[in-house]
Amino acid sequence: MQDLLIRGARPWGGQTADIVVRDGRIAAIGPDLPAAPGAEIVDARGCLAIPGLVDAHAHIDKTLWGTPWHPHQAGPSLMDKINNERQVLAGLGLSPEVQSARLLRRLVACGTTHVRTHVDVGPDVGLTHLHGVQAMRDKHRDWIDIDIVAFPQTGVMIRPGTLDLLEQAARDGAEVIGGLDPVGVDRDPKGQLDGIFAIAGRHGCGVDIHLHDRGDLGAVTVEMIAERTRSLGLAGKVAISHAFCLGGVEPARLESLIALLLENDIAIMTHAPAGPTPFPPIRLLHERGVRLFSGSDGIRDTWSPLNNGDMLERAFLLAYRSGFRDDPGIEVALRMATYGGAQVMSVADYGLTVGSAADLVLVEAETASEAVAYHPPRRLVLKRGRVVARDGRALLPDSE
Amino acid sequence: MQDLLIRGARPWGGQTADIVVRDGRIAAIGPDLPAAPGAEIVDARGCLAIPGLVDAHAHIDKTLWGTPWHPHQAGPSLMDKINNERQVLAGLGLSPEVQSARLLRRLVACGTTHVRTHVDVGPDVGLTHLHGVQAMRDKHRDWIDIDIVAFPQTGVMIRPGTLDLLEQAARDGAEVIGGLDPVGVDRDPKGQLDGIFAIAGRHGCGVDIHLHDRGDLGAVTVEMIAERTRSLGLAGKVAISHAFCLGGVEPARLESLIALLLENDIAIMTHAPAGPTPFPPIRLLHERGVRLFSGSDGIRDTWSPLNNGDMLERAFLLAYRSGFRDDPGIEVALRMATYGGAQVMSVADYGLTVGSAADLVLVEAETASEAVAYHPPRRLVLKRGRVVARDGRALLPDSE
Ligand SMILES: [Zn+2]
Ligand SMILES: [Zn+2]
Repeated sequence: MQDLLIRGARPWGGQTADIVVRDGRIAAIGPDLPAAPGAEIVDARGCLAIPGLVDAHAHIDKTLWGTPWHPHQAGPSLMDKINNERQVLAGLGLSPEVQSARLLRRLVACGTTHVRTHVDVGPDVGLTHLHGVQAMRDKHRDWIDIDIVAFPQTGVMIRPGTLDLLEQAARDGAEVIGGLDPVGVDRDPKGQLDGIFAIAGRHGCGVDIHLHDRGDLGAVTVEMIAERTRSLGLAGKVAISHAFCLGGVEPARLESLIALLLENDIAIMTHAPAGPTPFPPIRLLHERGVRLFSGSDGIRDTWSPLNNGDMLERAFLLAYRSGFRDDPGIEVALRMATYGGAQVMSVADYGLTVGSAADLVLVEAETASEAVAYHPPRRLVLKRGRVVARDGRALLPDSE
Repeated sequence: MQDLLIRGARPWGGQTADIVVRDGRIAAIGPDLPAAPGAEIVDARGCLAIPGLVDAHAHIDKTLWGTPWHPHQAGPSLMDKINNERQVLAGLGLSPEVQSARLLRRLVACGTTHVRTHVDVGPDVGLTHLHGVQAMRDKHRDWIDIDIVAFPQTGVMIRPGTLDLLEQAARDGAEVIGGLDPVGVDRDPKGQLDGIFAIAGRHGCGVDIHLHDRGDLGAVTVEMIAERTRSLGLAGKVAISHAFCLGGVEPARLESLIALLLENDIAIMTHAPAGPTPFPPIRLLHERGVRLFSGSDGIRDTWSPLNNGDMLERAFLLAYRSGFRDDPGIEVALRMATYGGAQVMSVADYGLTVGSAADLVLVEAETASEAVAYHPPRRLVLKRGRVVARDGRALLPDSE
């Protein structure tokens, strides 16, 4: 592949610089770099350059993307939504491979270069969603990097056979083992947590647990997750998604939970939930050193039609819901949608430094804050040095 | 002007229809309409067609749009932000006419066809902002319709001379008289409200009061506004902007306030504020029949860099903050950003019916909810039948 020379971009804002892309990597960054013979030259016209957006909590196996509009019908509770989803998906008979591929086009167009997706695993669907997404992934390795969480969407202990399926998913290549409200859904937190941590320990997987339970229920669960992280030596490999409880417990309790998160290097995912739902205090957690990341959660699915898969807009929502107006606050939100997710996914060569993979997004903005505030269509998206989207449109062939 | 025939659009969703635009108005809507000789034909390719977006609460006189990025610096309180703004604006020396014209380009690109803007009036700036925005408006009448609220941003009773300036603003053509936290800012609700209502009554203006005061402070103010609306016969001409208190009072008190709003036909504006700020319960108010509308509030100004002027995204934020997932809820949000604002601005010929002004927006979406969820760049924007924006770009000449 010939060199690509990006002229006059602003890496994460600031002064403009040129970026040389060679063999899929950033070969040089600096002012007025020379073009190698035959290099393709892109005039960034002062656009912001950021590393590829990271959607580190998605559910691409069960999106309704690309199908006729589906009016939302589920009741208000978590179990309402779980049961409604089973009915709707069974009725529509959609293919996880096809649906995840349809959504891929949107993600690429938005500049997402890495996805960690929770894929449903349970007695009703078995491992079909896992295998479908894996098949999609195999066909699109040049477009996006995908890690898979085996996710027990219908519960673990209340659905006999689920632990066995999660173990099989780990054998079949799932990188992470998921969990779901060990108290609220299973009412057996010891059973669920011992079960999924044991599988993760045996297979060297990470753990990422959906925790919607609020207040003390959630706080106790965070404590139980921390215990198992410590006893199995999984520090740095465990994440808690949503963690609404961190937005709703007493300050003293919150401090003790933060101490546990730091001791066990547990990362926290929030996507800034809709409605009045409490969510983790991003600035406080960031200042204390807790690792934070974000994701779209379900994109146009039976849970909600509102999530649209744009991680730059997601950074905006994180800032907006948190009331951030200052540049440092807004940049924390953007880091959650970039570096934070890349760290949770253990992407080794991520970033805007020489030697990093050339996963790059150009956005018409002067500063990182401006990009977050306006999140305009992405001017250019590179995946390992190759142009994969331009002016808001993915360049995947129609057949894919 | 020759006819324009829009083929295959979906008026507010549903089945596709053709739309004939003649002499700036919608001349026909229906399936398979014939093209008049010489008519320009636009293939809508199934895009949603909605009436022009209405930004019925903006502050276009003091945007920083088009200037170098200004990191947010104001302190947390309302008075911090007011005082910070005076310092920053005085230091930058920006022209309200130039700044509002710069922002106009963005508004047109986003499909906004009507704006009600609060323009600062006070002892420090006198009527310069009013006259600047009026001059901009006069030069851009073909691009957008603008109504002006004379807005006492620095307070009324605490800034002697402000009432006289508001009266002069009414004489100079301001359509609406504004107010600002009669208790929280002025600590003289009787003085402020008697003063601004008297001016509105004398000049036949509407009234639109910024009310950030929460809880009982805000509730008492709503009651005082209702009293004066009744005694001056201004039912249908009064609006309360923000009205955070409606999101934070006891249910019984809320019901009594709703009764007052209905009796006096007072409209409520919310833009779904950032952070944990309480805001009016949209669905409840809508179901009770309270008129609702929305706006961007300050777009990229010293108050916050996050508001970006896209009213379709604003409808998304209204739905997202309210926790709406169902189509009817999401459509209430879109109506606030279209019909609700048009009603408050007394736009006579607004809508998707034959005879309405051809202020139209085409969006790549199947349903109103989908347009709100994804708010993609506007495919086409018409102002009185003329194409003013295409594919997210306004067609104003560079010199304007
Ligand atoms: Zn999830
Ligand atoms: Zn305002």
